[in-house]
Amino acid sequence: MTIPKKVTSAPPTANVLSPLPARGAEEATEALLSADGVRVERIVSHGQSSPAGFWYDQDEAEWVLVLRGRARLTIEGETQDRELGPGDSLFLPAHCRHRVAWTQADGPTIWLAIFIDARLAPKPVG
Amino acid sequence: MTIPKKVTSAPPTANVLSPLPARGAEEATEALLSADGVRVERIVSHGQSSPAGFWYDQDEAEWVLVLRGRARLTIEGETQDRELGPGDSLFLPAHCRHRVAWTQADGPTIWLAIFIDARLAPKPVG
Repeated sequence: MTIPKKVTSAPPTANVLSPLPARGAEEATEALLSADGVRVERIVSHGQSSPAGFWYDQDEAEWVLVLRGRARLTIEGETQDRELGPGDSLFLPAHCRHRVAWTQADGPTIWLAIFIDARLAPKPVG
Repeated sequence: MTIPKKVTSAPPTANVLSPLPARGAEEATEALLSADGVRVERIVSHGQSSPAGFWYDQDEAEWVLVLRGRARLTIEGETQDRELGPGDSLFLPAHCRHRVAWTQADGPTIWLAIFIDARLAPKPVG
């Protein structure tokens, strides 16, 4: 791969808070950035939660940040849900089973999610 | 590397909007997440800008998102600064020379920055 020595332009600025997709039956997921082993997504919830008995069980680690709204996340094995509001972030190791217990119904909850392959050894800092 | 099949806990939730470091002479940078070839940082500006004539010229691509505040970014070769406010995101390819022209002085500007090695071929989507 050739890496240019000098680059004099960048793609247009994009806002992750607007526009938002119309409220639908499902959460709306949009890829923002991709790289080998890395994926950044915006997820917009409107009161959706994970189906009863469903657990996310991912090969990738996920770092998630609530940009707007409110949500509750259940992590299997933990006795208390994680209450998440604006600015709250959470690192979910690969195969940390979790589900979305609740998102607010009276407005969008906007998540920024970074998925990183376990082979890149992702870890939270600080 | 052994990837566990089941993980039943996650690190504590952390808020990226608070607490904030005290206003100092320099921008305050804090690592949030790291992986091979990937680094996620929170950067807090309080009116700082890049020194005159200084350009960031990085081996890594950077995806930056303004979480709070306002800033202007200059990209070498572009005729107009990028005006950035809450939710605005920008992909800066590796070696895209840029500088922070201005950040608001009357409150913090909080950035989320994802740095990705060029060898992982980062690219914006959509």
